[in-house]
Amino acid sequence: MCLWYDETFDDQSRLGLRVEKTLFSGQSDYQKIEVIDTVGFGRVLVIDNVFMTSEYDEFLYHEMLTQPAMTTAPSVERVLVIGGGDGGTVREVLRHPDVKQCVMIEIDRMVVDVCREHLPGIGTAWSDPRLDLRFIDGIDYVKTSDDEKYDVILLDGTDPVGPGAMLFDERFYEGCKRMLAPGGVMALQSESPLLMLDVFIETQHKLRKLFEEVHPYMGPVPLYGTCTWSLTWCSDTGEPLRADPERQAAIVEGSKAYNPELHRAIFALPNYVKRALKL
Amino acid sequence: MCLWYDETFDDQSRLGLRVEKTLFSGQSDYQKIEVIDTVGFGRVLVIDNVFMTSEYDEFLYHEMLTQPAMTTAPSVERVLVIGGGDGGTVREVLRHPDVKQCVMIEIDRMVVDVCREHLPGIGTAWSDPRLDLRFIDGIDYVKTSDDEKYDVILLDGTDPVGPGAMLFDERFYEGCKRMLAPGGVMALQSESPLLMLDVFIETQHKLRKLFEEVHPYMGPVPLYGTCTWSLTWCSDTGEPLRADPERQAAIVEGSKAYNPELHRAIFALPNYVKRALKL
Repeated sequence: MCLWYDETFDDQSRLGLRVEKTLFSGQSDYQKIEVIDTVGFGRVLVIDNVFMTSEYDEFLYHEMLTQPAMTTAPSVERVLVIGGGDGGTVREVLRHPDVKQCVMIEIDRMVVDVCREHLPGIGTAWSDPRLDLRFIDGIDYVKTSDDEKYDVILLDGTDPVGPGAMLFDERFYEGCKRMLAPGGVMALQSESPLLMLDVFIETQHKLRKLFEEVHPYMGPVPLYGTCTWSLTWCSDTGEPLRADPERQAAIVEGSKAYNPELHRAIFALPNYVKRALKL
Repeated sequence: MCLWYDETFDDQSRLGLRVEKTLFSGQSDYQKIEVIDTVGFGRVLVIDNVFMTSEYDEFLYHEMLTQPAMTTAPSVERVLVIGGGDGGTVREVLRHPDVKQCVMIEIDRMVVDVCREHLPGIGTAWSDPRLDLRFIDGIDYVKTSDDEKYDVILLDGTDPVGPGAMLFDERFYEGCKRMLAPGGVMALQSESPLLMLDVFIETQHKLRKLFEEVHPYMGPVPLYGTCTWSLTWCSDTGEPLRADPERQAAIVEGSKAYNPELHRAIFALPNYVKRALKL
């Protein structure tokens, strides 16, 4: 017998993974959580039937979400991660020796518990003493927190449907900006310009209202089906290509994808994206 | 009823397209040829159950195969295309006003006939008087032809299985080199480093034996399932990043993806590829 797990995109195309075994299946207060062991992608986290991350290609997403911001912010002492329950993003943050505190806000404790058990190769930094993991609502946090501001904020949310939808809301971005130190850098996943051009464009417009510098960049994430995924670098000052060479040097050897040339390269946009953004 | 056409990769993962209608299905002397009309990718050419090109994303592949070579070769007067029966590659070649002759060698006349009828938006240059289309075997041609040598050679073959397998053979590359003018540039599709790392590496090694400069580059092709596809730029002299600004300017406006920044960017390789190639 041959078992396939298919994720369908807008009823138009689908990516199927051949499943060897289901390792976990459960329902949290927020969403359906599954971990499947696949032939081609290793272990895969699935939330509400959407592929979230896999052992095989997680480095592409996590390095690209994290390292452009972490190598360009004026300081990286205090970092905030919202979402990212698999632990890949905080792992990438905590590879930087200059980080003093990394606060991670995840609404769904079950995601973290399941990933710690079944995807230990992705979240390898759960025991780092600089990590401050809180199971609270990120929306409330950025709206109401009195915490000291952050040098870097990384938004590692799901798609703009279900419990993750609020993470694409303009008021949420306003809250994030409130928590960002002057000159700080925020980076977020911003969907596929090929698959969801409207969401991509709308997100860029929301961010441009809030930040002086808004620069989408693109990279491949095979698990996300359409190939090209976008992330966005935001700040009021600074430039996304002006990276700190020492901070880059400290992490290149341990990176599976990231290097200084690739950092520059991912900010080059194809014409169809530039035209959609009127750049 | 909901019809899906799935392409399966190594029995590990699959990409499925929702089909509205099958426009053509037939068997040539060489392969099974189909054109399907899909909900998300428009019309799609399928050969031996492998997705070849789609109206939706063909520009990503054809521009990236063609334009890096066409903008860096010392001359582009004479261009040879082997394969590429859908016509997308010769269309890209013939956008350059400096091209005097473009010889296209396609073994399977039925592919061209079917694409002319059902994918007229991809092959838009069939009537260009500079095109010399010949239905002969590319392997024989590069081995035995007395034709004048070419400034640019583009290999637009299928995967290294079936009738396209010979296009990944070392002796075939030797034949191509024989047909290349001094200082000329050859570019070819060279499979996915994520999906077929072994074929990718082997191809690079074969090419390095023959050419002084062998530079793989990468771009997204959603239809090819794993996202990142590789192409390779080869020459005995010259540099893949030293493009002719005038030739670039002549084609950027009509390109959906290609621009000078993207040209530079696609040659930046992630660490996992550099390490596999010992770069």
